[in-house]
Amino acid sequence: MEGDSPLQLRVFDLNCWGIRYLSKRRQERVELIGDTLCQEGFDLVLLQEVWSEKDYSNLKVKLGGRYPFSHYFRSGVIGSGLCIFSKFPILDTLLYQYSLNGYPYMLQHGDWFCGKSVGLVIMKISGILFNVYITHLHAEYCREKDAYLPHRLVQAWELAQFIRHTSKAADVVLLGGDLNMHPEDVGIRLLRGWTGLRDAFAEAMRFEGCEDGCTLIPKNCFTDKAELLPFPLGIRIDYILYKAISSFVVKCKELKTTTGTAPGMDIPFSDHEAVMATLHIKRQGQAAGDTLGTAEPMMADVVTEARTEVGVGLRAAQRQRYSTGRMAVLALLLLLVQAAAALGTLVGLGTEQPFPKLSFSLLAFAAIGILLLATSLYLFHTMEVKMLQGTEEQMQMALRTLQE
Amino acid sequence: MEGDSPLQLRVFDLNCWGIRYLSKRRQERVELIGDTLCQEGFDLVLLQEVWSEKDYSNLKVKLGGRYPFSHYFRSGVIGSGLCIFSKFPILDTLLYQYSLNGYPYMLQHGDWFCGKSVGLVIMKISGILFNVYITHLHAEYCREKDAYLPHRLVQAWELAQFIRHTSKAADVVLLGGDLNMHPEDVGIRLLRGWTGLRDAFAEAMRFEGCEDGCTLIPKNCFTDKAELLPFPLGIRIDYILYKAISSFVVKCKELKTTTGTAPGMDIPFSDHEAVMATLHIKRQGQAAGDTLGTAEPMMADVVTEARTEVGVGLRAAQRQRYSTGRMAVLALLLLLVQAAAALGTLVGLGTEQPFPKLSFSLLAFAAIGILLLATSLYLFHTMEVKMLQGTEEQMQMALRTLQE
Repeated sequence: MEGDSPLQLRVFDLNCWGIRYLSKRRQERVELIGDTLCQEGFDLVLLQEVWSEKDYSNLKVKLGGRYPFSHYFRSGVIGSGLCIFSKFPILDTLLYQYSLNGYPYMLQHGDWFCGKSVGLVIMKISGILFNVYITHLHAEYCREKDAYLPHRLVQAWELAQFIRHTSKAADVVLLGGDLNMHPEDVGIRLLRGWTGLRDAFAEAMRFEGCEDGCTLIPKNCFTDKAELLPFPLGIRIDYILYKAISSFVVKCKELKTTTGTAPGMDIPFSDHEAVMATLHIKRQGQAAGDTLGTAEPMMADVVTEARTEVGVGLRAAQRQRYSTGRMAVLALLLLLVQAAAALGTLVGLGTEQPFPKLSFSLLAFAAIGILLLATSLYLFHTMEVKMLQGTEEQMQMALRTLQE
Repeated sequence: MEGDSPLQLRVFDLNCWGIRYLSKRRQERVELIGDTLCQEGFDLVLLQEVWSEKDYSNLKVKLGGRYPFSHYFRSGVIGSGLCIFSKFPILDTLLYQYSLNGYPYMLQHGDWFCGKSVGLVIMKISGILFNVYITHLHAEYCREKDAYLPHRLVQAWELAQFIRHTSKAADVVLLGGDLNMHPEDVGIRLLRGWTGLRDAFAEAMRFEGCEDGCTLIPKNCFTDKAELLPFPLGIRIDYILYKAISSFVVKCKELKTTTGTAPGMDIPFSDHEAVMATLHIKRQGQAAGDTLGTAEPMMADVVTEARTEVGVGLRAAQRQRYSTGRMAVLALLLLLVQAAAALGTLVGLGTEQPFPKLSFSLLAFAAIGILLLATSLYLFHTMEVKMLQGTEEQMQMALRTLQE
């Protein structure tokens, strides 16, 4: 089979910033994305933050001619925001929802409501079996004091494990998405090391776009300039990663990003830049070798580093579980004292009612409210503790395997 | 390789009924389970409803000599209750939490709090790669009007999809657990048909135990006799299923169940009977063939039947979402009216306050309570709708694939 002309695959990846009522010029930008995708002949389009199913349906109608196959991954309250458009038939799909994804009470961040997930799409192109993964990890709101790092690391670990376990029959693995991690972050090193995925930007033979491949840049009119102050060039958090599993080789012939505006327009597609890769996939004589991931030699150090961060998150979650539990107990005690006082008054132990009725009722209502809220939070943090413990244990097991 | 002596594998599966403070004679029974497993030389032990991590730790200490490898799957508030003990090293694990699992407000049922999941354990025994799955699906509380059927079907579908997608490199697939479905139920037919798994009870060359292989029987002193009235023999809801993927054949030489008491004792292990299978695994000359599941010819009918039930659940969820949403809007309106009245009094529009302060405050608190509760329920049912829609779509895609 050697000497066959390689399969060329053009992949488009974009975080579309499609939050209804909040994202600026959303409909105009979705139109623009649709128009561009229609003109450009990509093979695979991986979109994130398409939160509105209406936007997806509109895109589906517009792209139907050029990309007849598509899938929208539903999850969470708002939806995962993940969707894929393809020139080639989709054979099967699977959704894996990350076990941790921020906190429901952090309404201003809202990640919890999106049910962040990884979507798997299986397709056969020219006889080659592709496992295409699309994902969007928890956002980073403050790099200096990143309260969500343990959750994002659990997500990166679950993503890596999901890819490892579901891709064993695939010839080629592709992952596209907004990973919300800088290239040198421990989560990316963990994901790449544990799966053996390669970074299209690092491997590209030709690159055109923002310096350092950045996908969140100060030049883009929708980005938060203050957030990017420490990074004058911007940051790279959107990726296309790939890997050949069996007797195939994948080469990234070209990687492009948009540079603050959509090609030939005066507004950008989104607050993120699009990443566009041209991949060449070729069958080779013998198996590629690195089929079981763990391609990086320093993997044990990376897993240890990630495990330490998960441990930090675990202790924070345990503290929060403890304080919410204590709060619930205190509210319950207050209610019991009030009930005893009320009972005392009823059976005539006290000659007069010690408190005015109104304050007494208001206090009881407040206690009930706090009891319910604290109990819900206690349950939530109990789940968080369980999942962090579970991930720590899995990483421990991975370390044992690596050391053996 | 033909003619090799087959690998014999003895598998023990039991729902342990280990609910702290609620399950009768729990500690005594866990001790008994541990003692029996120590005496009997099983290779793999799959336990469900080990809700107390303390029980797991005790078992781990007791079984350490005979079953040096074990794993406890953590999830939900209480824990998945799933654990595995093995004579052979565990190479890797993965947990998939079902996207739907009852309702948090159904406190008397409590399934939601368990974070029901499927756990995957990978092991190599005599050079044969095993994917061992352990699970526990949502309970059935009323067979005539089973409100949880759509959720259980989503779980059965996700279980089947998870097995299909993660088992592609395995030589042998084993699934053990309490599926909470009778053998003829649509969920079991869906699971078996879509994965190609075989039922150890149906395939067993020799069987010893309860008639029809029942695992919940009236004779067991812990079972609810009223629940089993329509089934004088009992029901079969605990299973060991298996499948050879590549060039292996699996045969069930013997299947046993306990019969209302632990062997040689006067109390049972649990309210469920244990299922014990002796499997023979043998390499054969050529690949087994049915690698891609969908072994059953009538699969399209089964998927259609399941999809119809999921559709019924979807419409119920949509109705609940609508009524909780309406309730939230009404509570909000009441609050607004109250705020307007209070404001009117404050600026002196009304000459006197129209309501006594106490009732006014109580009403406001009640409205706030209802608003919060109804909003939470609305969000929950929105997620439910999304997951049911997603499953319906996946089943639709499966039907298209089957029809092609």
